[in-house]
Amino acid sequence: VVNWFWRRRDAIVAPRLRPRADASSFTKVDLAELTPDREQFLGRAARVQLVHFEGLSKAVAIATALPSKERLSRAAAIALRKHHLLVAEIERTGATPATVMEKHAKGIEYFQSATIGSDLAETIMSSYISAGLLDDFFSRLAAGLKGETGTRVANLYAAESYEKLLVEELAAAISAQPHLEARMAMWGRRLVGDSMLVARGSLAMPPSSASDEARIEPVFTELIAAHTRRMDALGLTA
Amino acid sequence: VVNWFWRRRDAIVAPRLRPRADASSFTKVDLAELTPDREQFLGRAARVQLVHFEGLSKAVAIATALPSKERLSRAAAIALRKHHLLVAEIERTGATPATVMEKHAKGIEYFQSATIGSDLAETIMSSYISAGLLDDFFSRLAAGLKGETGTRVANLYAAESYEKLLVEELAAAISAQPHLEARMAMWGRRLVGDSMLVARGSLAMPPSSASDEARIEPVFTELIAAHTRRMDALGLTA
Repeated sequence: VVNWFWRRRDAIVAPRLRPRADASSFTKVDLAELTPDREQFLGRAARVQLVHFEGLSKAVAIATALPSKERLSRAAAIALRKHHLLVAEIERTGATPATVMEKHAKGIEYFQSATIGSDLAETIMSSYISAGLLDDFFSRLAAGLKGETGTRVANLYAAESYEKLLVEELAAAISAQPHLEARMAMWGRRLVGDSMLVARGSLAMPPSSASDEARIEPVFTELIAAHTRRMDALGLTA
Repeated sequence: VVNWFWRRRDAIVAPRLRPRADASSFTKVDLAELTPDREQFLGRAARVQLVHFEGLSKAVAIATALPSKERLSRAAAIALRKHHLLVAEIERTGATPATVMEKHAKGIEYFQSATIGSDLAETIMSSYISAGLLDDFFSRLAAGLKGETGTRVANLYAAESYEKLLVEELAAAISAQPHLEARMAMWGRRLVGDSMLVARGSLAMPPSSASDEARIEPVFTELIAAHTRRMDALGLTA
């Protein structure tokens, strides 16, 4: 796989102290033309959200401090609600959720194995970076879903986020153990690469020509910019 | 610790084909006099429910079949909702949930380590047997909580149960791998012992005299009878 989405990386400015409120100033590029059919979208989004839940529930289990367990369990509950709402959407189509999700097994299982953290900080970082990027991506891609499904899916992504819970946990961990900083910066770069592969594989038609690529590039540039802000919120260089 | 709650074990009849609907015919013995104060009850019940969630989410993660993951994720969501409702009750008292739960760390962490399964079937069995017994126990013990707290806590235990989801998973596993039967029967016996220790340690006043013991015994006899029905539903001897 060509790491095409890294091509413009040098052009991305990563100001370390940019206010997070800037997020809304980014123009959202329309992904609607690249949205796959409803069943394919929902199967993939639901399967990915289950990975997020498994990561967060692993973090709950390996955290030893109860305040951390509590915060992480809130995040896990949010991921699980999103997953079950997506599964409910699959059920509305009359299809069997497990069957529809199973079609995405190969890519998603690879993604999960590549992004499993080896300790608590890495595990939380995986959820923060990967779920952050992919929820962002699927929420944009939902613009291309027709009718009420599109509205409901957009709403379920917009309704709740665990980003704040995770950034609090991570910032506390890094501040308590400064040696984590370099490792988390490196881990974050790996996570964004694997997450982008999942995003790219979710498009209706993988770009095959230079003009296709050119059309998609702004979207991925925005995803990378959002990623940079997430890293920035931890004081890490993207 | 004396396994006093085994004393009457020989007297328990375990009919293998007893209809599960019989459950309601058992007389519920009043535990109200043994209910600890609100904070102690809630801290322990919430901490135990977090163990149930961790067990179920581990089962979600290690299950490979998506239909199993789906069923188990429903069960995990139920445990997590109960946990968060109990935590909300602690917050209503003005106390900090983590602090209140922390007081029960020692016994509960031992319980968790003793009841962690070594594979998927054992992990699900742990939730089925331990969470079944302990939810049953705390729901009875809640009768002694005063005012609206008691009502809300009783309701949260009564509202949802994952027993049916788990028994379906386990019955399918045992039917597909008959060699599991003997191991699950043995594991179930160990689980009931560890769960009963947690239940006993939750009483306001550990029985110190023969008359105390006599007062509590009917409750534990009922818990064991309910346990026997759970084992029976899997075709296992308790």
